[in-house]
Amino acid sequence: MDTSLFSHSYQSPTGSPIRELFPYLSKPGLISFAGGYPSPELFDGDGLKEAAARVTGGSNDVYQYGPTEGLPALRERLAELGQKRGVEAQAQNLLVTTGSQQAFDLLVKTLLDPGDTVLVELPAYPATLQALRLAQVQVLGVPMDAHGLQTESLRSTLQALRTASRPKLLYTVPTFSNPSGTVLCEARRASLVELALEYGFFIVEDDPYGELSFTSDLHKPLYRHGMEMAGSRNPVIYLSSLSKTVAPALRTGWMAANDDILRRCAIAKQTADLCSSPLTQMIATEYLGLGRYDAAVERACRTYQERMQVMTDGLNALLSHQLSFVQPQGGMFLWADLHPDMPLPDLFDACVREGVLYVPGTAFFPTPTARKSIRMSFASPGLADIQEGVNRLRRAMDAVTPVIRSSRANASVAAGV
Amino acid sequence: MDTSLFSHSYQSPTGSPIRELFPYLSKPGLISFAGGYPSPELFDGDGLKEAAARVTGGSNDVYQYGPTEGLPALRERLAELGQKRGVEAQAQNLLVTTGSQQAFDLLVKTLLDPGDTVLVELPAYPATLQALRLAQVQVLGVPMDAHGLQTESLRSTLQALRTASRPKLLYTVPTFSNPSGTVLCEARRASLVELALEYGFFIVEDDPYGELSFTSDLHKPLYRHGMEMAGSRNPVIYLSSLSKTVAPALRTGWMAANDDILRRCAIAKQTADLCSSPLTQMIATEYLGLGRYDAAVERACRTYQERMQVMTDGLNALLSHQLSFVQPQGGMFLWADLHPDMPLPDLFDACVREGVLYVPGTAFFPTPTARKSIRMSFASPGLADIQEGVNRLRRAMDAVTPVIRSSRANASVAAGV
Repeated sequence: MDTSLFSHSYQSPTGSPIRELFPYLSKPGLISFAGGYPSPELFDGDGLKEAAARVTGGSNDVYQYGPTEGLPALRERLAELGQKRGVEAQAQNLLVTTGSQQAFDLLVKTLLDPGDTVLVELPAYPATLQALRLAQVQVLGVPMDAHGLQTESLRSTLQALRTASRPKLLYTVPTFSNPSGTVLCEARRASLVELALEYGFFIVEDDPYGELSFTSDLHKPLYRHGMEMAGSRNPVIYLSSLSKTVAPALRTGWMAANDDILRRCAIAKQTADLCSSPLTQMIATEYLGLGRYDAAVERACRTYQERMQVMTDGLNALLSHQLSFVQPQGGMFLWADLHPDMPLPDLFDACVREGVLYVPGTAFFPTPTARKSIRMSFASPGLADIQEGVNRLRRAMDAVTPVIRSSRANASVAAGV
Repeated sequence: MDTSLFSHSYQSPTGSPIRELFPYLSKPGLISFAGGYPSPELFDGDGLKEAAARVTGGSNDVYQYGPTEGLPALRERLAELGQKRGVEAQAQNLLVTTGSQQAFDLLVKTLLDPGDTVLVELPAYPATLQALRLAQVQVLGVPMDAHGLQTESLRSTLQALRTASRPKLLYTVPTFSNPSGTVLCEARRASLVELALEYGFFIVEDDPYGELSFTSDLHKPLYRHGMEMAGSRNPVIYLSSLSKTVAPALRTGWMAANDDILRRCAIAKQTADLCSSPLTQMIATEYLGLGRYDAAVERACRTYQERMQVMTDGLNALLSHQLSFVQPQGGMFLWADLHPDMPLPDLFDACVREGVLYVPGTAFFPTPTARKSIRMSFASPGLADIQEGVNRLRRAMDAVTPVIRSSRANASVAAGV
């Protein structure tokens, strides 16, 4: 077909780099650290079943269209959920979206024109990079370290930019980031919001994982920093979702933002899908009213922490010279930087042969990168599979890197392991 | 807020003209012909409840993410549904969308750049006009008459256009159109597809109402014409939805199109919402498997036909000199052209005072129009309300048009009424 029939962005588009891994998943006995999905045995099936039964046991009105902004009762529940996290938004400051993915899509539509400049933390969530690529904007990466995106590096970037290419927005997952697993530290949270106010850009604070914490540490939302510093001129747009804490199939996400943004996103949503499913919105509302949410999240936190611990113990024991990582304090992901001598396509092939899968780090950068890294999710496999998966990763790495293997062996002796 | 922070399309966007009528709906005792919603008492609540119970009675996997293209089992069911209508697409030629509204949004993203030319039948569905306005394309209207869009007028338009402004696509609801209620006749269906092939544009055949027929007439889908004429080069993209036949809250729409289009729309959908709710997709799948669909559609057809008949009998009896219309053969809408002397804002105000609401015809045009018309839906009010609503419309028209009233009175005498 003549590709000129398609829009500029879609003449030869490429799909998600993670979806390209799907064919490998059918290999018998494969252990996958590549997924980004929450673990289904942690979904509160009994609670969701009860919520659905309540909803479908009533009037036919539950099957009708609903308001574009979302059902009022759900907006109330989500506002309460946000308030417990420190996001002081009221129900009328929230827009319910078809997953938080849609919230970002609405922001792209309402905020960005082709050629605009957008800042993203790197490594970044691939669907965000893809949405920005298709929107034909210029993406500037802000590097991260163990404490999240480097605000001093961001400041230098902003100072160097000419006014004409000043960024419209910055995208970040400040708490238990995907893929890096890191938390943006408190001092940088304040700095980041100050920079947004000084340079006049919006911050998209994507927070799907914030409640999946393995510690009692509290991480003040950027949204709250923004309210304290700027009130109704808050530059922070807060996104979250029930996908990682209740169930992805509800497709229930939300956005908290100021009126000007929210009104435009609601107009964009009318043409995007009219409204998110009122049926799943009602099931979500009922579920949140059952009083089972906190226990379900608590169970997920314990399970993910245990799995993370087994994974990091295994990596420390078996692969400490082949890779390095920051131990996650929450969320679903571990990001590992590999030894610079690691031969990357060989490693991937060796892992497939051994029966273990990860996502190559290149998937999380907008342009080719020399950085050698991988993302591993500890959310879905059971403990035995995680241990065995790390064993397989070790065997694969040993097979492709005899040099590192011996240097590791020497170092281990030196370290008395 | 500084509107320059928003994208070009969203600096000062206007919302749906139909949503602007919402405040009037709270008036006590109001009879609304303005809605576009199906009638909730026609939803098969028992069937949907059973389908939901089956889905939530099983494994937790029903709460997980699903494939972007839609659940395979649902695509099979929807393909069968299409085949019964003459849309010979297989499951792999279908993309499940969050309502057919999303299908159109994905097509806008994948096919259109700002400045492109798009053809729409006029009067047209307002959400389509809004999506095109926000996409910054040039909209060219194709007038309709009692037999749907006028293909000879379209041919003249196409001949007059310079190559550079040749249209990329044409949007039409060929069967029981919203708002006109008309059916595109057989000869014009063939002509339209021929024109698409000759001039190289896509046709979006939006078919949410096709099964809501009041007669046994069959209307061959444009998609089928396209397959017969061009095979894999079929220029027709078929959209449909379960919103008018099962329930809007499922937000289950679909698109049948060739591989090149489908693949791009799936990529666009990844960034739009990752996937439509797998939970409602599974409920839809179960529901379609219960064998209750045909009876539910049959009941809706009978009910809507009865309501349409009461409305058109009333209009013929009371308002035959103030307005004219084509009697709908299906769907949910009646379009009436008003007497040229009808004072429009006065009429709307008088109707609000009398307690009856319609949608002003201007909502269905992309630019101001001198045409005086209204859209009335007979789908939701009961029979007594329809009769009373027509009475109120008559009183409102009499109040604002004493001249037409007397000419009507004279004409009635002449006609022996």
